[in-house]
Amino acid sequence: MVPATDTRQRLIDSARELIYSRSYADVGVAAICEHAGVRKGSFYHFFPSKQELTLAVLDASFLEMKQQLLDRAFAPDRPPLARLERFLDMTWAFQKQMKEATGHMPGCPFGNLGAELSTRDETIRRKVDAVFSSLRSGMRDLLAEAVQAGDLEPVDIDATAAAMLAYFEGVLLTAKTRNDPDVLKQLAPAMLGIRIPPQAESA
Amino acid sequence: MVPATDTRQRLIDSARELIYSRSYADVGVAAICEHAGVRKGSFYHFFPSKQELTLAVLDASFLEMKQQLLDRAFAPDRPPLARLERFLDMTWAFQKQMKEATGHMPGCPFGNLGAELSTRDETIRRKVDAVFSSLRSGMRDLLAEAVQAGDLEPVDIDATAAAMLAYFEGVLLTAKTRNDPDVLKQLAPAMLGIRIPPQAESA
Repeated sequence: MVPATDTRQRLIDSARELIYSRSYADVGVAAICEHAGVRKGSFYHFFPSKQELTLAVLDASFLEMKQQLLDRAFAPDRPPLARLERFLDMTWAFQKQMKEATGHMPGCPFGNLGAELSTRDETIRRKVDAVFSSLRSGMRDLLAEAVQAGDLEPVDIDATAAAMLAYFEGVLLTAKTRNDPDVLKQLAPAMLGIRIPPQAESA
Repeated sequence: MVPATDTRQRLIDSARELIYSRSYADVGVAAICEHAGVRKGSFYHFFPSKQELTLAVLDASFLEMKQQLLDRAFAPDRPPLARLERFLDMTWAFQKQMKEATGHMPGCPFGNLGAELSTRDETIRRKVDAVFSSLRSGMRDLLAEAVQAGDLEPVDIDATAAAMLAYFEGVLLTAKTRNDPDVLKQLAPAMLGIRIPPQAESA
């Protein structure tokens, strides 16, 4: 007997792998079930729809990114801007490893779904936007710490974190479109030079 | 009698509108034919596949971007960096107008397809990458002119143009994910501050 929690997790893991390597619309419930070794009839016992499963996939992807990437890259064993550099290096290493394993650089699992679905699925759009907000918030905290430590001149830290995240997403997207992780190696470090100056105080 | 060139163009126009507002995988040949008022049987007289039609869509989108955006934004009636600013302003105005008309900010038609299809369709990936190359090349020329005019310190103009395009794509993507064109208004101008310094000459 396979416990139900295992079946649910297998569906999430399969959907995550298939959607990340292909796209949301390109991966149907039948393909997810086949990959997971789950009868299609059982799918709807666990998830009312592919959309609901995809929300669970986004939660799982975010948790993994947090544990495997953010908690390590942002660990306070070095100054805050050096943690951002480590985040970029680790992202490059991961994308390079994925390219070597699959032949394709997959890019950002969140950005991919944001690009594909934001005009089509308001629930998924909001979920991806919430992931981006968390990422921005993590970057923002590092920038605030860097300003506090005198490693960074005063900037609009919210806007600068948003600009840095946008740049990071854009570098991942153009590297994916070139299918070349080394685009990250070349371009990503310029993220650390992006600044949006403080707003003038209103009277 | 509808001339064949009209039918072909209607298929391109319909595919372009549907794919841009939804996604590639989400739009089938039947939906394109219905939107274009073309019998499905005739589709394959004009295009062997949806992939081939999409290559024609990318050509049409690039031509329109060139005529409606690049030729105007990059017109030499102002200094080169001010032309890049105009390019950003015009992009913001277009995305805002699309959001008002459809309820959704559609983002970049090229970046959308690059994100959705780069791992899945090598032919379309290469086509999107070629569009990005053309855009980079246009930006590169402006940067070279700005350096020449003394408006910009010497930079690695190829890498800086690539970084600026990546930032532009990332701002469009995060704005689309927020469904808010004003993210462009806030973040896009920082594109002009991105610099990748010249490589040290090798001995």
